[in-house]
Parts: sequence; structure tokens; C-alpha cells
Amino acid sequence: MASLDRLSLNTATVRAQWSLAECIEGCVRHGIPAIAPWRDKLAELGAERAGRLIRDAGLRVTGLCRGGMFPVAEPSGRQAVIDDNRRAVDEALEIGAECLVLVVGGLPGGSKDIAGAREQVRDGIATLLEYARPSGIPLAIEPLHPMYAADRACINTMAQANDLCDELGAGLGIAVDVYHVWWDPDLEREIRRAGAQRLLAFHVCDWLVPTRDLLTDRGMMGDGVIDIPLIRAWVEAAGYSGACEVEIFSTETWWKRDPDEVLEIMKQRTEVAV
Amino acid sequence: MASLDRLSLNTATVRAQWSLAECIEGCVRHGIPAIAPWRDKLAELGAERAGRLIRDAGLRVTGLCRGGMFPVAEPSGRQAVIDDNRRAVDEALEIGAECLVLVVGGLPGGSKDIAGAREQVRDGIATLLEYARPSGIPLAIEPLHPMYAADRACINTMAQANDLCDELGAGLGIAVDVYHVWWDPDLEREIRRAGAQRLLAFHVCDWLVPTRDLLTDRGMMGDGVIDIPLIRAWVEAAGYSGACEVEIFSTETWWKRDPDEVLEIMKQRTEVAV
Repeated sequence: MASLDRLSLNTATVRAQWSLAECIEGCVRHGIPAIAPWRDKLAELGAERAGRLIRDAGLRVTGLCRGGMFPVAEPSGRQAVIDDNRRAVDEALEIGAECLVLVVGGLPGGSKDIAGAREQVRDGIATLLEYARPSGIPLAIEPLHPMYAADRACINTMAQANDLCDELGAGLGIAVDVYHVWWDPDLEREIRRAGAQRLLAFHVCDWLVPTRDLLTDRGMMGDGVIDIPLIRAWVEAAGYSGACEVEIFSTETWWKRDPDEVLEIMKQRTEVAV
Repeated sequence: MASLDRLSLNTATVRAQWSLAECIEGCVRHGIPAIAPWRDKLAELGAERAGRLIRDAGLRVTGLCRGGMFPVAEPSGRQAVIDDNRRAVDEALEIGAECLVLVVGGLPGGSKDIAGAREQVRDGIATLLEYARPSGIPLAIEPLHPMYAADRACINTMAQANDLCDELGAGLGIAVDVYHVWWDPDLEREIRRAGAQRLLAFHVCDWLVPTRDLLTDRGMMGDGVIDIPLIRAWVEAAGYSGACEVEIFSTETWWKRDPDEVLEIMKQRTEVAV
């Protein structure tokens, strides 16, 4: 099973309990060698100070969550989205993140045009890449589960993400989150297609049965039905040697627990269920 | 938009309010020319009596919901599943259904082996086809949304359903439900691939934003984000000329309304949003 020196704490896992400063201290206290902050947590400290604290703590930064949200209802809104994404690239650079994770966005207000939203995503990423490439920050498309196609991300499979990488070229890769892709019958093939170059992040949690909420009822590894070791074996066979980043949205369970306990359980489960 | 003479009432839409006998009377009263019962409603009357009532009412039967649920935890459970599916074929014959809809089943108790579940589904359908083919009842695989992969159906895309049809041959087709497939970037291509021969049913409802429950928060056509006329155009371009069957699971809205109002609104929406 996965070794603890591969573990990374995505701050979403304890977002209800801890500030970013507390997450950094928590990682150090529990011997977790890496962190992946969300931008709302980063804003608490500012990227510069956050970067300094993270470096002083000796942590790797396996990603910054998140850029994206490209589709807009009116063309006049596009520049603001690109500007915000550029700031996200700057922040990723400031904190030494290994990639900027993109949650690409869904259907803009009232639209039923998913093909159009996907075109906006492609165009938005193409524009952002011009800014991100010189900075050296890779962009990682995170395909989200199809149940988020309307409101969070209209890139819903690894195949779509790979197609975008084929089209848009260098500087673009994929963040594989088992929660979003475990059901995909083409998963193994598309992970192989992505290869070491494109596989920029690997996120873990679990799919609970029943799942009581579309967004915030994700499970701790081992509590659900995803064969996480199998998917990890696939990404590693494809050449991925990065972190296993734990990202759990869980209003009713993990966001209510003592965060030190959450980190301990994360570590135990990483060794037996990842 | 869709004509009312194409409309079919799936009994799930008013399942909280009406018995099957009331559904049949409701269709007649509202000039809805077709019905698709679920087996729990059928059991109220028995298939023979239900068939007689439906024929006397002059209704088409666009499908019987549902067979399937093939994966089992223990091999000893397989025969019971096949036996129950054979009874479903018999019932479909008895009521003159145009197809038996298959919700194929998910991961059997505690399993994380989705590839294995998919093999069980293939084997189960192959076995059932030997019984269904001589009866003349086509089996319609309904690919379910990936959010049901664990607990309801591990066939989650049109491509998977088409692959199974390729492999298993005559007597097998597909029920396309817009709720389950609208997000699929390969949808148009896979509908074309299915063609008139395989397209056995077309189910409509809508995807609400936000969706508050994974199973029972489906919307009336026009209330969500699915471009239903576009998908209908694709199935018709592929040669489908059957019904538009309205199937809405909705604990909080449509299952609480006066069912005569639900049928009236269904008719209005069929003319403007299907």
C-alpha cells in the first residue's frame, strides 16, 4: 500500500476546522510531507507569507486548488476570469506549487449548451497557457464526475482531458481524482494514454454507498467502493511518481471530527487502503 | 417540439400518488396514448389483468421497467436473478410491452470490483437473451448516470451499451434516458452508432441545478439544463420513431402534486421543451 512519504494533505479535508497556518503546523506535527492549499485558505495569509511558512515547514506543495471556471454567460465576463486565473498562476509560483489544478467550470447561468461550454473551456485554457508556460507552472485539468457537469466542470472524463492535452500542447496535464473517474470503463486505457508527462496529481478519497449529498459526502479511503490501490497501480505503471493527495469533502463526518484525528486516520488508511 | 401522440407516461412519474389502474385511467382521461409501468405497479393487478386493462384502454406499452440487477455477491444467487428476469420477460409479453428495460445492477454487497460486476452483467444478459429472443421481447439496456455505478447500474455510457449489443447480438438494444446521458461528450456519435435497430426507448425528464438528491430530485422537462430537443433530434436522425416516455423521480416536487396536474404539465412541456 502507499507509503507515508507520498502523502499530501489537501486543505479541503479539514477546511471546516483549520486555517492554512494550522494545516501547515498539522502536517509538520503528523509527519505529512506535503500540502495542497485551496485559494480561499491561501487568501487568509496572502500567497507570499503562506509560501514562506510552507517553505520554513519544509513541505512540498503538490498543487494549488484551483483555477478554472472558464465558461461565462456573456463574452464581456471572459477577461475577468482570465485575470483571476493569472493571479492563481502567480500564487502557485509564489508558494512553489507543482501544478495549478483546474476545475474548468460548467454551464454558465441558464445555458443548456454543454458543447459551447466545452469550447469556452478549451479557449480559456489556451489563453491561460500563454501566461502559465513562461512561469513554469503546469496546468492540471481535473476531470470531475459527470454529476458536476452542469455546475462545476464540463470536462468529465480522462479521455476529454487527454484530448485537450493533445490539442493544446505543452504545459497542460491532468489531475486524477479517484472519486471522479473510478466508474469510467476507459480509465486504465486513458491513464496509460496520459503517461508520466501529463499525470500531474493523484487525489484520493472514497465513494460512499449510499452517497447522501452530491458535493460533500465523500468518504475516507477504505470506507467506500473504489479500488484505490488498483487505480494507483495504473497511474504508477504509467510513470506517475508523485504524491497521493487526500481531498475529502465531508460536511457530516470528517469536517466534524477533531482534525488531528482526521490526519491520523488519513495516515493509517494511506497505508492500508491506498 | 414533440407531438403529444408520441407521449408515454412512465408510472414512476406519479408513483407516489396513483396505482396502475389510476395511471391507466389518467392516460385515457388526458389523451396520453402510451404507458410504461414499473413491475411494482404491475404486481398490484397482476400482469394478466393489467394487460387486459391496458388493452381495453387502447394504450401502447412503450416498455416494462425493469429487469436487470444481475451482479450478485455469491454465484449461488445467480439463478434466482435469472428466474426473476424471466418472469419480467413473461410479464412484458403479457402486457404487450415493446421492450423490457434493464437496469443492470451495480457492485454486489461490499465489492470494489466494477470490472467483475460488468462481466456479470454481460453474462446475465447473455443468459436472459436465450429466453427473451424466442418470446419476441427485446431487452433494452438503460445506461445509468455514473453516479449510480456503485448501487444501481455499472453500465454508464452509450458506448458501453453499444459494445454489449455488438457482443451479444440480436434481441438487445438500448433505452436512452436524457437524464443519464446528457453530459456524455460521445453522445451524438454513440446514438448514431446505435441506430434505429437498437434504439428501443427514449426517456425524458430534466437535470436540475442544484440537484439535491442523487435519486429523487429529477426535474420536469424545461426546468433544468438538458437540451432535450437536441438529443431528441439525434435519436430521430438515427432512425428512432418511438415514444417520448416521461419518467420523473421527484420526492419533493412532482410526487407531491395533484397527479392530474402533473399529467397536464407533462403534456404542455412535451410541446415546448421536448
